[in-house]
Amino acid sequence: MQRNSIKVSMAVVRRLPKYHRYLGELIENDVNRISSKELGKIMGLTASQIRQDLNCFGGFGQQGYGYNVNDLYKEIGSILGLNREYKTVIVGAGNLGQAISNYEGFRREGFKLLAMFDVNPRLVGNTIRDIKIHDIMELEDFVRDNGVNIGIICVPKSSSQEIADILVRANIRALWNFAPNDVNVPDNIIIENVSINESLYTLTYLMNEDNLDI
Amino acid sequence: MQRNSIKVSMAVVRRLPKYHRYLGELIENDVNRISSKELGKIMGLTASQIRQDLNCFGGFGQQGYGYNVNDLYKEIGSILGLNREYKTVIVGAGNLGQAISNYEGFRREGFKLLAMFDVNPRLVGNTIRDIKIHDIMELEDFVRDNGVNIGIICVPKSSSQEIADILVRANIRALWNFAPNDVNVPDNIIIENVSINESLYTLTYLMNEDNLDI
Repeated sequence: MQRNSIKVSMAVVRRLPKYHRYLGELIENDVNRISSKELGKIMGLTASQIRQDLNCFGGFGQQGYGYNVNDLYKEIGSILGLNREYKTVIVGAGNLGQAISNYEGFRREGFKLLAMFDVNPRLVGNTIRDIKIHDIMELEDFVRDNGVNIGIICVPKSSSQEIADILVRANIRALWNFAPNDVNVPDNIIIENVSINESLYTLTYLMNEDNLDI
Repeated sequence: MQRNSIKVSMAVVRRLPKYHRYLGELIENDVNRISSKELGKIMGLTASQIRQDLNCFGGFGQQGYGYNVNDLYKEIGSILGLNREYKTVIVGAGNLGQAISNYEGFRREGFKLLAMFDVNPRLVGNTIRDIKIHDIMELEDFVRDNGVNIGIICVPKSSSQEIADILVRANIRALWNFAPNDVNVPDNIIIENVSINESLYTLTYLMNEDNLDI
């Protein structure tokens, strides 16, 4: 497929997973094609926004027909890099690490969870859904030896930077960080900080917005 | 404090929790004042971006002095609505619900977790860190009788809409949704969908961006 040779803005990139999710739901409901107007309606976007977003990638729609749902889903999945396999480890095997390991969307083809790691001797050696919990001391060698691509950080704030440093030393490519602080990594490492607090505080802002004298 | 009578853009609002967090860390490190340049450096923003953001709220800085860290922290906390108390419940007491109940930033003054709810008879009746897990059948009455403000949804995709509907019927004010699908609520309900998948797929996009022919 012909695509435009332009850098896609992060605002568009961050909407692509939403397109992917809604298109997946349409496929589950046996919908084969959809107009930008209909797609906009279920996604809460305007038809022109939809067309503009998808045009960044060369456009997939045909006038008078709309979008082929299967094709669009596959193409967006491929743009998002969901058509290949990633080797992952989770560091921190507490509730959060276990929740992520079991989260719909992570437990799909493509994301291969090789191991979990923890410092807690009561957890180390246990197996959760076929995934072994290793001692944190084994982390660096394991990541290097197995060519792990994505390190998922589910440890408290106090140790998140240390874990990030270990993963970077072990040649990790990307970090998905759930600790409530940003971690610093070299420019060549991809990082996504999942800021759960930011979402909560946006919620409380909105709850009080009407009372604010701003 | 005098503030401008303008609606603050959501882009600025979503940056406020980050300011709040970094200022909190400065306070922990006994920093009393900071220039927009220094603050920008640790936050990865330009000094002019910092000044522009904070000007939305009337500006707090003084030329040649910078910002008083304590005042700014308190003021942003108040704008974010963190100076009042919220009654919350968590629906879904599995790993994710337990992880949220224990998350730094949620376990702070102000967020009062009254109860957790689940369908699983092995969980119902148990107590986790002093919080009782109730049968989901009690949810509607409990929320109404106790004037709960925020409902936190930690159930699978298949039941998230049903839970949202119950909470709305019980006069909840806001929903913090961790299920991997958006839930529909009336316009008067505040909702934050935490899209963990969107963050993961943004990560995989960035991992593959260099190889994309776009």
